[in-house]
Amino acid sequence: MIDFALTPQQEELKERTASFIRDVVIPYEADTRKSAHGPSDALRDDLVNEAKKVNLLSPHIGTEYGGLGLDHRTKAIVFEEAGYSPLGPIALNIAAPDEGNGHLIEQVANEDQKEQFLRRMASGEARSIFTMTEPDGGAGSDPSMMKTIAQEDGDHYVINGRKWLITSADGARIAIVMARTLDANGVDVGASMFLTEVDVPGFAMVEVLDAMDSNAVGGHSVIDFENLRVHRTQVLGEIGRGFRYAQVRLGPARLTHCMRWLGAARRCHDIAVDYARQRQAFGKTLGEHEGIGFQLADNLAEMHACRLMIWQCAWVLDQGDQARTESSVAKLYCSEALGRVVDRSLQTLGGTGITSRTVVRQTYEDIRAFRIYDGPSEVHRWSIARQLLK
Amino acid sequence: MIDFALTPQQEELKERTASFIRDVVIPYEADTRKSAHGPSDALRDDLVNEAKKVNLLSPHIGTEYGGLGLDHRTKAIVFEEAGYSPLGPIALNIAAPDEGNGHLIEQVANEDQKEQFLRRMASGEARSIFTMTEPDGGAGSDPSMMKTIAQEDGDHYVINGRKWLITSADGARIAIVMARTLDANGVDVGASMFLTEVDVPGFAMVEVLDAMDSNAVGGHSVIDFENLRVHRTQVLGEIGRGFRYAQVRLGPARLTHCMRWLGAARRCHDIAVDYARQRQAFGKTLGEHEGIGFQLADNLAEMHACRLMIWQCAWVLDQGDQARTESSVAKLYCSEALGRVVDRSLQTLGGTGITSRTVVRQTYEDIRAFRIYDGPSEVHRWSIARQLLK
Amino acid sequence: MIDFALTPQQEELKERTASFIRDVVIPYEADTRKSAHGPSDALRDDLVNEAKKVNLLSPHIGTEYGGLGLDHRTKAIVFEEAGYSPLGPIALNIAAPDEGNGHLIEQVANEDQKEQFLRRMASGEARSIFTMTEPDGGAGSDPSMMKTIAQEDGDHYVINGRKWLITSADGARIAIVMARTLDANGVDVGASMFLTEVDVPGFAMVEVLDAMDSNAVGGHSVIDFENLRVHRTQVLGEIGRGFRYAQVRLGPARLTHCMRWLGAARRCHDIAVDYARQRQAFGKTLGEHEGIGFQLADNLAEMHACRLMIWQCAWVLDQGDQARTESSVAKLYCSEALGRVVDRSLQTLGGTGITSRTVVRQTYEDIRAFRIYDGPSEVHRWSIARQLLK
Amino acid sequence: MIDFALTPQQEELKERTASFIRDVVIPYEADTRKSAHGPSDALRDDLVNEAKKVNLLSPHIGTEYGGLGLDHRTKAIVFEEAGYSPLGPIALNIAAPDEGNGHLIEQVANEDQKEQFLRRMASGEARSIFTMTEPDGGAGSDPSMMKTIAQEDGDHYVINGRKWLITSADGARIAIVMARTLDANGVDVGASMFLTEVDVPGFAMVEVLDAMDSNAVGGHSVIDFENLRVHRTQVLGEIGRGFRYAQVRLGPARLTHCMRWLGAARRCHDIAVDYARQRQAFGKTLGEHEGIGFQLADNLAEMHACRLMIWQCAWVLDQGDQARTESSVAKLYCSEALGRVVDRSLQTLGGTGITSRTVVRQTYEDIRAFRIYDGPSEVHRWSIARQLLK
Repeated sequence: MIDFALTPQQEELKERTASFIRDVVIPYEADTRKSAHGPSDALRDDLVNEAKKVNLLSPHIGTEYGGLGLDHRTKAIVFEEAGYSPLGPIALNIAAPDEGNGHLIEQVANEDQKEQFLRRMASGEARSIFTMTEPDGGAGSDPSMMKTIAQEDGDHYVINGRKWLITSADGARIAIVMARTLDANGVDVGASMFLTEVDVPGFAMVEVLDAMDSNAVGGHSVIDFENLRVHRTQVLGEIGRGFRYAQVRLGPARLTHCMRWLGAARRCHDIAVDYARQRQAFGKTLGEHEGIGFQLADNLAEMHACRLMIWQCAWVLDQGDQARTESSVAKLYCSEALGRVVDRSLQTLGGTGITSRTVVRQTYEDIRAFRIYDGPSEVHRWSIARQLLK
Repeated sequence: MIDFALTPQQEELKERTASFIRDVVIPYEADTRKSAHGPSDALRDDLVNEAKKVNLLSPHIGTEYGGLGLDHRTKAIVFEEAGYSPLGPIALNIAAPDEGNGHLIEQVANEDQKEQFLRRMASGEARSIFTMTEPDGGAGSDPSMMKTIAQEDGDHYVINGRKWLITSADGARIAIVMARTLDANGVDVGASMFLTEVDVPGFAMVEVLDAMDSNAVGGHSVIDFENLRVHRTQVLGEIGRGFRYAQVRLGPARLTHCMRWLGAARRCHDIAVDYARQRQAFGKTLGEHEGIGFQLADNLAEMHACRLMIWQCAWVLDQGDQARTESSVAKLYCSEALGRVVDRSLQTLGGTGITSRTVVRQTYEDIRAFRIYDGPSEVHRWSIARQLLK
Repeated sequence: MIDFALTPQQEELKERTASFIRDVVIPYEADTRKSAHGPSDALRDDLVNEAKKVNLLSPHIGTEYGGLGLDHRTKAIVFEEAGYSPLGPIALNIAAPDEGNGHLIEQVANEDQKEQFLRRMASGEARSIFTMTEPDGGAGSDPSMMKTIAQEDGDHYVINGRKWLITSADGARIAIVMARTLDANGVDVGASMFLTEVDVPGFAMVEVLDAMDSNAVGGHSVIDFENLRVHRTQVLGEIGRGFRYAQVRLGPARLTHCMRWLGAARRCHDIAVDYARQRQAFGKTLGEHEGIGFQLADNLAEMHACRLMIWQCAWVLDQGDQARTESSVAKLYCSEALGRVVDRSLQTLGGTGITSRTVVRQTYEDIRAFRIYDGPSEVHRWSIARQLLK
Repeated sequence: MIDFALTPQQEELKERTASFIRDVVIPYEADTRKSAHGPSDALRDDLVNEAKKVNLLSPHIGTEYGGLGLDHRTKAIVFEEAGYSPLGPIALNIAAPDEGNGHLIEQVANEDQKEQFLRRMASGEARSIFTMTEPDGGAGSDPSMMKTIAQEDGDHYVINGRKWLITSADGARIAIVMARTLDANGVDVGASMFLTEVDVPGFAMVEVLDAMDSNAVGGHSVIDFENLRVHRTQVLGEIGRGFRYAQVRLGPARLTHCMRWLGAARRCHDIAVDYARQRQAFGKTLGEHEGIGFQLADNLAEMHACRLMIWQCAWVLDQGDQARTESSVAKLYCSEALGRVVDRSLQTLGGTGITSRTVVRQTYEDIRAFRIYDGPSEVHRWSIARQLLK
């Protein structure tokens, strides 16, 4: 039956997360242990420890591996609250790409792999990365253009290729590597995924890119695989099913982006509302000017639409469906609408908005990428249209 | 618990309504018993009889008065399906303003009044109107400017004034009259509502206005009250509480507009999708052109947002809350988003879109008013902003 | 040298046209000699006679054929003023498609043809039509799909096919017919244009379409060619060059649409500004509400952009250039921006806006087609992009 | 007469500037002499020397003081070309606020002041700043809230107050100081402007703000005036006329912002076009996807509108008019449209767009402030509406 009530457990988690963010995490925003690329691992470690104290670490991973084992709808509640600070997802261990990797590994990996990788991820000990995107000419919006190759070689695969825009690579311990796979006869058997430690021969961090967003620990990197050897026990799932697993990963991963960014946009909106209540211009508060008040009203309406889309898609996922169209619609809509929310919030702040006096400036820079990664708006529109027109 | 599943009863009603619209109502769209103002009462009578046969008449009125007694969420399901044809809401007896009047009377009227008025409305025998809006200088977006006056005179009130844009007045039997009220001493005691038959002395239909929309039986009229005498037993609720009752009426009335228009927009979208699948241009179908396909994808996303907002607001109403902000947000968002959906659908059709070959053309004209009545977008933005900034 | 000053002749023509529209034409807007499709020819005749009296008839045709022989920039000035009333272009004999036909004939026809056709068009005696568009399956946005065929037969061509959305056909005397041409051996030699009287065997008006816009005399029709025989002296220009001539026609024709619609949008804006100055709501005039005032400011900015684009494109045409990209950009931008201007004007008027109390309602309906004909926005975006990316 | 042709002198300047930017300035974009706030003065000095070599320094200042003495239309040509690189305006000595200050001083200052200040500005020896904006509670969008006070004291004025968001203050030599003025009796006689060296007692740079944009030498600073004494010979123009001079400054200053940002947006667009030509996805180039191509077409249309508005406003200024409405419309429109152009360009680049591989990322950050400074969009809409509704 159509229902929008939170369960008591959800209410409690929501309040606990909100308090944690407000009282514990937001004060860390002034912490200077950051580079131009993002917060340092030292800062992350402190935040993770804080989350452990209030039992909010790794809500997305099953309890058997040390997480909270929340369903998608409850994650929607908790992740939105966590996103209220750029440091919140880091504290709860639910930042991209680690969060999506955890979900994927839990769905696809075997028990040995889960023991080796997932448990360390759940505890916050090890961060993981997802290496799919390649420089121009390779896999971007169109993953079928992938150039990185894994060549079967006895019990091993030998991987060569360049990846880029690999988020949070600097300082990560674990990697999911995606590559086109050639069997012993050199026949292309499709893309595959491999699990590996990062600190191994053949895994080279080339460069941390200078990028507009700065909310990811470690920024975005270029990585070279130079004869990286992985054993066949490191294959995630089965050889040749890499793109299917990417889909398993993508639906929920897209949606958790929406959740976190909804929280971030709400933060900006709240800052703008506060400012509009106090700042005077032309004889009244900013908020009393319809030109500002109307923008805040639109913020409210669009955030409401985003939240409902997220909840609905989470519900579909909770029914066991992959929610491909729903997650595509949610990603498209939220990335565009929440970008507008942050933009209007910044505009409300006037000159203050372009300074670092509030978190709005960073959020404006950070959220721009949301319209691009995990499928740019154009790819989602294309994909939704194709579904529609079938 | 957050849930988006329909109950079996809702599923059955949805399917029954959809079949009725598709198989019975849509064929009536070619019926020529219409004027430039809208369908005739003769056509309406036939449609109402059809709805009776499948037991879908008056779903919004309590079973004790002859309706189906649906809650708001179930109305959301049924009304969206009904809106799929411009004639659907007429058939089900849920067109504005009658539908909202029924709801208001059921909430506020006494038993005698319900017997006299509501029962005839539920059976489809009598259509009702709501006379609030006045010509320039009087009550429009700002109801406090109301100039129509009800002067207490013993056991009666004598009403004088001009109303305009009174929807479906031509052919209606019952009216809710709104007027500023002066007591016996000439003191303004606030706005009041009165229930009256239309065919009485002092109630004069001056003109049926030439207007852009043509989906309402009877169009929109100018009405003059010239010493219209109503007995105090005709007061709806209590004297002086007219604006409060207007609020009781408005929340749900706004939302049922959203429901019906969502169905209408979906119809246009479906027509556009069909056309985009078949029509060729520049070597492929229209839909394969991203310039068209992307518009259809945006249609889907925005209709999805509208439906979720409607359901959420209906749920709030079902909890017994007035849902003032929720219904304001839903009305603002749906009126703008659904207008865009219809516009994109028309654009997809090209030259065909501006002809009467499809219902899109009429819907384009009809839906424009939705951004204006029941509070134009500007009033809703102002009201939402005021709530936000408190 | 970059200059935006009008010449004294332009100033005088502008003022004369503005006065004529204000004092003579606008009073005719109440004339009831109209159908649902548009003004009658009787009304047109009166208007044309009025324009003759003030020497404003046929400003687009050369003086040797009875027009005023204005260059494109001066047309921009005059046509904008004429567009200020939906009847203005009819009065000045510069409504589509007649105006574009006159330009094309003047460019391409031989002297005999000009004497036979152009002179009667310039005097207002005969209206002309342009038959290119076909029903679904035929030539629409993609003219290469044309199905109408002209078969060479000795000194004649025999034309068969169906055209639709042929503007102003009812009552027209002269037609430019476009058809794919087969030579005596049945070889397709490309599209050609033919000049013909309308009142001849084989030229059948099938239906006047019911359409949303109602500003064209005669509305839009379906026309069947059933063995329409035209002599080779009726070929316009050369056989096989139909699409090139369509381009000759289209650039200036698109631009004159922009000119007329700019005037129409300015009329709506002026009505909205007047209303916003006077109508009170919530304690001040509508215009003092930023929510309305800001919309009017955006109107001003976008009309300004449109006017400048029109002038610049007219200047390019006056240099002898075809201005294909400029006219495409102007048509795309003006159709979308002026549609927004009219929409905001209507919104400012509130309920009044959807009634026929002002010309805004009709303009809202009329201007919608502007985003579709002469290339829908999507085709212009595609064409501009192709140029860009070469 | 309406004309869009460049004069031979304008053509030559355009080509010379374009070559200079392309061949000399753009290579400096890789120069590392920058901080997070902007380019260093050392880098600026090199750029200025380069511009001197090709005789492009200070095109906005009269020849008698060492500039090129261009009129507004010619500035429009040259400044757009200069804006093609973020370093171009710095090289030509036409970056804000220095450029606007030069114009103001040339209009208002006396000969002694011009000799002392303007000559050093024209030669590039000294950069100047404009201190009007104050922290929250003081002068921002509403200059009438100014709190900084200049107290008359014999032949001097003693200035106290805090300014913020003072662009390019770090390293500047000359300041225009704006302050409310109290005469010897403490009577407020209105705002005044004063010319001063920066390196004097009472002029304290408090902080360089951390801000989103990084194209201004010296970034944006907080400045405290603590008993800053200025002699009455340092009054710019007359006491009490500060706001009038601000208007003298603002019209042209707004417009030169539009010119520079048009060049910057065009650069981004060109980068996007190049990328769209080469990058493949889903079997064709990005540009062949309508979803991308259409965005580039909209870029072209909106840049065209911006350029025409700039030229028209420059022409009005060249007629000796203050162009208050025209410059307000141009600033409003260009800041919003060019922001969209840069946004679409970034989107076209996908993941590359958020990295520093191209100048698009910086431009995206830099241009956001353009919708805020020199009057945010909301103030311009308000001001235009007030003009409209008079």
